[in-house]
Amino acid sequence: MTRKLILFYIMFCAGICSAGSAVAQQAQWIWYPGDYEIWLSNHFQNRRTERGTFFPVFWKMDNHYVLMNFSKPVELSQAEELSVFAEGQYNVKVDGKMLEGMPSRVTIPAGKHNINVKVFSQAVVPAIFINGKTIKSDSSWLVTFEDKEWIDETGKTSDISATKWLQAGSDNFTDPAQPPSAFKLPVKPVYASSAQVNGASRLVDFGRETFGFVKLHGLQGTGKLTIYYGESKEEALSPQKAETLDRLLINISNKVDSLMPLSKAFRFVNIVSEGEVKMDSVSMLYEYADIPDKGSFSSSDEQLNQIYEVAKYTLHLCTRGFFIDGIKRDRWIWSGDAYQSNLMNYYLMNDNATVTRTMYALRGKDPVTSHINTIMDYTFYWFMGIYDYYLYTGDKHFIRQNYDRMESLIKYVMGRRNKDGLLQGLPGDWIFIDWAAGLSKEGEVSFEQLLFARSLETMSLCAELVDDKDGAVRYRDLANGLKEKLFNLYWNDKKKALVHSRVNGQSTETVTRYANMFAIFFDLEQKMAVKSSVLLNNNIQKITTPYMRFYELEALCAMGEQKYVLGEMKNYWGGMLKLGATSFWEEYDPSKKESEHYAMYGRDFGKSLCHAWGASPIYLLGKYYLGVKPLTAGYETYVIEPALGGLQWMQGKVPTPKGEIELFVSNKEIKVKSPVGNGILKISSKKKPGGQNITPLAKGNNVYEISILPGREYVITYTAI
Amino acid sequence: MTRKLILFYIMFCAGICSAGSAVAQQAQWIWYPGDYEIWLSNHFQNRRTERGTFFPVFWKMDNHYVLMNFSKPVELSQAEELSVFAEGQYNVKVDGKMLEGMPSRVTIPAGKHNINVKVFSQAVVPAIFINGKTIKSDSSWLVTFEDKEWIDETGKTSDISATKWLQAGSDNFTDPAQPPSAFKLPVKPVYASSAQVNGASRLVDFGRETFGFVKLHGLQGTGKLTIYYGESKEEALSPQKAETLDRLLINISNKVDSLMPLSKAFRFVNIVSEGEVKMDSVSMLYEYADIPDKGSFSSSDEQLNQIYEVAKYTLHLCTRGFFIDGIKRDRWIWSGDAYQSNLMNYYLMNDNATVTRTMYALRGKDPVTSHINTIMDYTFYWFMGIYDYYLYTGDKHFIRQNYDRMESLIKYVMGRRNKDGLLQGLPGDWIFIDWAAGLSKEGEVSFEQLLFARSLETMSLCAELVDDKDGAVRYRDLANGLKEKLFNLYWNDKKKALVHSRVNGQSTETVTRYANMFAIFFDLEQKMAVKSSVLLNNNIQKITTPYMRFYELEALCAMGEQKYVLGEMKNYWGGMLKLGATSFWEEYDPSKKESEHYAMYGRDFGKSLCHAWGASPIYLLGKYYLGVKPLTAGYETYVIEPALGGLQWMQGKVPTPKGEIELFVSNKEIKVKSPVGNGILKISSKKKPGGQNITPLAKGNNVYEISILPGREYVITYTAI
Repeated sequence: MTRKLILFYIMFCAGICSAGSAVAQQAQWIWYPGDYEIWLSNHFQNRRTERGTFFPVFWKMDNHYVLMNFSKPVELSQAEELSVFAEGQYNVKVDGKMLEGMPSRVTIPAGKHNINVKVFSQAVVPAIFINGKTIKSDSSWLVTFEDKEWIDETGKTSDISATKWLQAGSDNFTDPAQPPSAFKLPVKPVYASSAQVNGASRLVDFGRETFGFVKLHGLQGTGKLTIYYGESKEEALSPQKAETLDRLLINISNKVDSLMPLSKAFRFVNIVSEGEVKMDSVSMLYEYADIPDKGSFSSSDEQLNQIYEVAKYTLHLCTRGFFIDGIKRDRWIWSGDAYQSNLMNYYLMNDNATVTRTMYALRGKDPVTSHINTIMDYTFYWFMGIYDYYLYTGDKHFIRQNYDRMESLIKYVMGRRNKDGLLQGLPGDWIFIDWAAGLSKEGEVSFEQLLFARSLETMSLCAELVDDKDGAVRYRDLANGLKEKLFNLYWNDKKKALVHSRVNGQSTETVTRYANMFAIFFDLEQKMAVKSSVLLNNNIQKITTPYMRFYELEALCAMGEQKYVLGEMKNYWGGMLKLGATSFWEEYDPSKKESEHYAMYGRDFGKSLCHAWGASPIYLLGKYYLGVKPLTAGYETYVIEPALGGLQWMQGKVPTPKGEIELFVSNKEIKVKSPVGNGILKISSKKKPGGQNITPLAKGNNVYEISILPGREYVITYTAI
Repeated sequence: MTRKLILFYIMFCAGICSAGSAVAQQAQWIWYPGDYEIWLSNHFQNRRTERGTFFPVFWKMDNHYVLMNFSKPVELSQAEELSVFAEGQYNVKVDGKMLEGMPSRVTIPAGKHNINVKVFSQAVVPAIFINGKTIKSDSSWLVTFEDKEWIDETGKTSDISATKWLQAGSDNFTDPAQPPSAFKLPVKPVYASSAQVNGASRLVDFGRETFGFVKLHGLQGTGKLTIYYGESKEEALSPQKAETLDRLLINISNKVDSLMPLSKAFRFVNIVSEGEVKMDSVSMLYEYADIPDKGSFSSSDEQLNQIYEVAKYTLHLCTRGFFIDGIKRDRWIWSGDAYQSNLMNYYLMNDNATVTRTMYALRGKDPVTSHINTIMDYTFYWFMGIYDYYLYTGDKHFIRQNYDRMESLIKYVMGRRNKDGLLQGLPGDWIFIDWAAGLSKEGEVSFEQLLFARSLETMSLCAELVDDKDGAVRYRDLANGLKEKLFNLYWNDKKKALVHSRVNGQSTETVTRYANMFAIFFDLEQKMAVKSSVLLNNNIQKITTPYMRFYELEALCAMGEQKYVLGEMKNYWGGMLKLGATSFWEEYDPSKKESEHYAMYGRDFGKSLCHAWGASPIYLLGKYYLGVKPLTAGYETYVIEPALGGLQWMQGKVPTPKGEIELFVSNKEIKVKSPVGNGILKISSKKKPGGQNITPLAKGNNVYEISILPGREYVITYTAI
């Protein structure tokens, strides 16, 4: 362990020193990586209420290191004056010598020097902002929570080479007057689309699902007010069952505007007064994360376009600094939900910061005392999300910063394997999989082993990225061993499917969709069998959450079933739209009727009507219709494999780290422009595709591959099959 | 692991349920055990400054859990109303059902119920105060940072039996209006004993070492003021070298009193003004921990009595919520220093709360990333301190609360053993031992192995106390194995001593006092040889810190050298008094001259003149002269083995958990009264001791044992040898 730490230190130092020689970017507030993200998520996640009562998470919330040392070696051709800002008490050392007091300006002489700023802060995360002509606090600074720097009785300083340094965390806070702890999401006023006053109640409709702070204008009088929030009109009109509410005591002689202190999710609010209370009108401040869309999709199918737009709105509503599950409840960061939001994000906003912030918050800090969100599957989605993040962004820095946390988490998991090397639910483990009636969680569930194997593959990849060569081999061997075991133990050749579980050492006979649809991505040789024996088999229990429909439809798309999936999308998401949905739901069972749709968890309005996992069409349309997928990290190489799936035409953009790939596809023509990497356009055409600057490579079976270089616009004529 | 956690849960539950049936004590603020102690220590330890600059520790400071669940099963014969106070946002559940809002009053119906309060607080430690007629928050409540309580889609609650609960921590905060985060040490005004004004300077003498906030009375004018603090007059009069100072900008038209914001250590302050600044006088607010003395000592030797009084004052000054090393610097909690303060405390204040607070703060939280205070020996003193704490107090509760932390710390240590099962300094480990010129830290130092063995013995004892039977055996075997190895590898029969270290697999020839004086307590058969070959051998490098003199003199006392030790005490501590000390120092080398005594760490006034480890006469006089020592936990059995060591008489009190043992001893008479346990008075007498209610048991060699029962006063006549 120790040797590795020193290695890290040297590696980073080398990085820093070279970074130091270039002119630095804009100064940023910096902190220990993950600490601010965890701190902020504590605040954001603790905004859930249920009928006015604070409703926090039920897993461990972590806390920041209160004492932090920031360090930076510099080389200056001339002396430079620095402004110093900090959140907390601090001292500044230059070349190991402390300057007096808490200086807000520091002069660094010409030459080689080492700057240290040490900060203590209990309530908020220790952070600094340093700005000079060339010296600027940024992620090239090093941080440690333990500098191990002692002196002996003669005043000699200790060797501190064992100190473990990481690169500082940052999140584009560039204003010294706006420290990270002051961060708030932006708001803008939104006015109601209609209001009906009925005696002592006022029902206000904002026209569609929204999120923010209700504002009562011209409030006056004496009495009580209760605001019942409703994602549906039925919920707002149910004083007994509405999931969220605000209660106010009013005693106001002159009219005032009153803003509710906590943001809420709603389309409707029903304001009920007792006593003599009046108001002029009701508006709201819409609270949002200001992240622009980079991806887009439109097509010849208007319903599909509407599905895409509502999915976009749903994802935006559930992107609030972090990828949360839903806006009414839980307003928490759930790993399985965030995993899908990440993937949708790569096809819409492509905002790395929300992904990494979410991943830091989910992982929390050591020691690991339970699975992420207490759910075994959710631990694995976290690992798989790291893999995806690297593939879509090529960001090695984040992997380096997190590798220790990845290792301690996988160690926790490995420590819970049984004698057969498999995972089963131990006390305290939640085996979630999906909300589905009667789903067995007993014994060793195949789905969990499969996700575990994919997590080990992620470990192996990341080990290579951080030069942990032993780890890379060890994790790869573990992953391969587990995959082999998985197919040996769970494949039922009669059923042509992976069975659901193994109980008391015996494979069961039950087949569910879960493991089978994930196994598609293991290049399962039996995958075509699984398609008909499981995925398209109506005798296998159906999935009723958009959450698992995500993977089911993805698996079908991956096997070329775009036409079938388009029909499913139109039925399923179109079905919600027909019921008046203005954002997509946590669960949708077409067999239910009217307000039955709003019930869940044994509560009439328990269901969330704006749930991020409902927005998966964004991902499916971008990846499997426009067909754009990275093959290697950060789109260095990628493939475009468009599939109209019955559409006459479609067009759109897919974001990459270097800009958007633009695409138009009809049965006769494809237009492509890409800013990035080496792409391959892969199409089926009855005739050899034509166009300028293209050299179609016939791959047999009417399949052609066309190389796409960055910066050029390609117009290709072909005849779709 | 999991099975053990459930066991804990059941064990505690059983404890609680029975506690619940009795009428509760006074309500207290409660929290997760250790969290408040750590939080408070973060604040207290970050009050060190050096020449006006914030000077924090260089090890990891931990942080509290921000989200806490408090739980209590109750059974009520009639309904009861509770007042609820909390630090943080909270909710209240009765039988799993959340009450609306954050109720400050809750009614619990008659019958069996389960109360839960869940609190989120980032800046301060989540804490609650609940008060009803019979239901009162106290340490019988359970707490967890992770309740793992989820519901399924039908609203069914999860099995939470895997949740790990501990008993709540508390510290006698019984006022709901004074939450733990508001705690401050008390202060009282103290006036200067003299002041000399000399032009623009004013030198104020408070007559002896003290600690607190300087107050300037009648301050007025325009200009600058600097307050130079001095533990010595020389330091206060040295603007360039004084270790602590305050700088003020003054612009005051009407006279004000100005209180310095940070407490400091000093006897002298030198106030130097620039510009037109005047003041009437200077006083201070003495800041202290209000802990009464229970132990006492006086004797026929006036110098010794004075040493005892100054030692008492020294220990009190260094007892500031926690046992800190010194009051000028570092004002930190160092494990080696605290270990000695703990022992002195058992003979003076016997304040359990300061011990446990200090132990919690030292241990911090998992994961363990370095030795305590980064020092290998200091990790071991922590373990040994737990052993002593149990022996002197019999408090099993603290052991139960800490056993997990003990296990993770010993696991860290064991993971650092080399192939021979020994410990040597790895990068980041500070091998401290003592401040001594030329002391080798290379290779495997015998002293560290010895302390490691004693730590393993502590683990074995504590494992038994918490019913970890496997652990008890495993740790005992490890301890025995290590002790055997220690004597095999380090005992040099020619030198009749343990050698200092082993380098590259070879035992060195160097003999130092350290391991040898500690080995005395292992019932070393060679101990009488060690006494002359090492402890009384002037050719072995002398110890110059009171820190290590503590153990050296203790070892000599344990071998009956009270007369010699008395002389040493009078020389060494008496030597400091002759130099004008009003509190005892960090280091004292009689060979130094005048202000040389104040220098250390390469700085003229680097030495601390009030250091807790200077107060060891309290311990030596109580344990080895009055001779009172517990034999089993909490003084259930104990021995009194008085040794006058040349004094004509002595008298004093030694605290026990049940009151003080009172003792008067002269050459002819011994008076004893004890409130506790079964004691044995062990004396040497030329004749058979006489007195009422005594049955002297002759043990041969003129030694007699007399049984001492609680509550009786014994007057024994004898003839000392």
